[in-house]
Amino acid sequence: MQALVLNQGLSYRTDVLKPEPKADEALIRLSLAGICATDLELVKGYAGFSGIIGHEFVGVVEAVGQTQDAHWLNQRVIGSINIGCHTCDACRSVGPEHCQQRKVLGIRLHDGVFADYFTLPVANLFAVPDAIKDQAAVFAEPLAAAVRVREQLKVIRVNKLAVLGPGRLGLLIAKVLVLAGYSVDVLGRTDATLELPRQWQLNTALIQETDDTSYDCVVDATGQASGFKQALRILKPRGNLVLKSTFSALEPIDLSKIVVNELNIIGSRCGPFAEALALLEQHSIPLETLINASYPLQAGMAAFQQASMPGIRKILLHP
Amino acid sequence: MQALVLNQGLSYRTDVLKPEPKADEALIRLSLAGICATDLELVKGYAGFSGIIGHEFVGVVEAVGQTQDAHWLNQRVIGSINIGCHTCDACRSVGPEHCQQRKVLGIRLHDGVFADYFTLPVANLFAVPDAIKDQAAVFAEPLAAAVRVREQLKVIRVNKLAVLGPGRLGLLIAKVLVLAGYSVDVLGRTDATLELPRQWQLNTALIQETDDTSYDCVVDATGQASGFKQALRILKPRGNLVLKSTFSALEPIDLSKIVVNELNIIGSRCGPFAEALALLEQHSIPLETLINASYPLQAGMAAFQQASMPGIRKILLHP
Repeated sequence: MQALVLNQGLSYRTDVLKPEPKADEALIRLSLAGICATDLELVKGYAGFSGIIGHEFVGVVEAVGQTQDAHWLNQRVIGSINIGCHTCDACRSVGPEHCQQRKVLGIRLHDGVFADYFTLPVANLFAVPDAIKDQAAVFAEPLAAAVRVREQLKVIRVNKLAVLGPGRLGLLIAKVLVLAGYSVDVLGRTDATLELPRQWQLNTALIQETDDTSYDCVVDATGQASGFKQALRILKPRGNLVLKSTFSALEPIDLSKIVVNELNIIGSRCGPFAEALALLEQHSIPLETLINASYPLQAGMAAFQQASMPGIRKILLHP
Repeated sequence: MQALVLNQGLSYRTDVLKPEPKADEALIRLSLAGICATDLELVKGYAGFSGIIGHEFVGVVEAVGQTQDAHWLNQRVIGSINIGCHTCDACRSVGPEHCQQRKVLGIRLHDGVFADYFTLPVANLFAVPDAIKDQAAVFAEPLAAAVRVREQLKVIRVNKLAVLGPGRLGLLIAKVLVLAGYSVDVLGRTDATLELPRQWQLNTALIQETDDTSYDCVVDATGQASGFKQALRILKPRGNLVLKSTFSALEPIDLSKIVVNELNIIGSRCGPFAEALALLEQHSIPLETLINASYPLQAGMAAFQQASMPGIRKILLHP
């Protein structure tokens, strides 16, 4: 089968063996996949992964392992990406996303979805209702990650919120929070990047022109170290900074500012797929406007090149 | 009068004018002062302060400004160190410690206590009950800072807690948290530094030998960048890191670890003096064992030298 394989560099190959589902797994035929910022970081060396990359997908179950129920066959599915050991303290208390032994689809010890076929435990799958098109369902993983921010803010008093970075994830977070009733400003570095947020009827401003330092919550979805510094600049004392970006560089940080202003820094990663699906069913987020282009797997290298360009929000891949 | 004056370098001077209290202030005669890690950082250039340094004190009110009540005269007092504008949003909501216009005793725009006399607004003063000796009352400020950690942890579920750094502040934090019912381990780098925590009947361990990564809260009171890295190493996913150290260096930080493990980083600074006084009245913390030496102001340079040496917990100054 064809696949995009990371092994030091990324390459398109056609000689990859079709995987066999283990007893607890499903074999899934790819319908549509999304290139995520984490994929671009993986190619740069973040997390040291080698294998087939890709973790945002919608597909169709083609086979299931021997212990699994046949009703999954031919079901259109999305899936959560963390595969835990099921026995450790983390798996039993908070879930597989914090299992120290976890595999992560296309990120850690488990081949990903930029291929004709891939496997995932059936326990990770969610059936996609007919009302949700593939072009929306493929956003379930980043949308779940956005819902995770909403979940974390539930226990914090927040009045005025900024999302830094009007990229794919930043827009999803801003929209999820506005739908949840928060007052949100989306801050970006160029007017061009703020055009889509305005189309989405979000409040926008240029970050470098913002001298408003009264935000009690800032979500950094810039994917860049500069975002952290800008967030510290506009947060009010005792404010909350939700960190959403993963990148491989070590950054020089002024820790004393965190202490002196008694800031609260909240790391935020994967979120609940069921709640993301519920949002998708409401059709209240114009996801299709995030899509810049869709490439066949065999043009995967060009797709990655476009995905890494400024202002690009979502590049899709299909078989 | 005599004073320790920071002006690029630190110097002992005898030609400093005795200050005059403003209408809302008291003039206080120093009884006993403590050298704090922040003072050592100020001398290194942190915060860019110049003037008389020092902010941990117990003293006696010698005069009050014209609008103030005469009952304060001859009263033995301690005092909170932040002087706010009283009109801004921060002053009215959270207090003067987060006022952007604030002065801070011996740290920012207001001369400190390493002098025969100093001034402080009467509103900042707390009368010291007779049952509390000067040698205990002088710890009110760092003890309040320790109580602040207890205050911040109230809204967080914590089972297993480590305090990194068995110095003066680390020990106070550990003891305050044990008295509040937490299970606390004090982690240090050498066996010698763990002797006093053991005397205080605290659980101790060598940090470099700790392979226990099940702490759901770590308080970094090391005063060093290495503490942050050690804390990240032993915290469990979704754990809480309370940052208590201020230092001037920018540190290279792996922000992605905060995101991937969904850690919560909590900056923590000044605390409530009334609650610190209440703890002092209970005599349940053997504060006198923290004192390594007491110097007259005229030997202030030697006092600072000893205060900066490894293993030293508290050096006091008196007129």
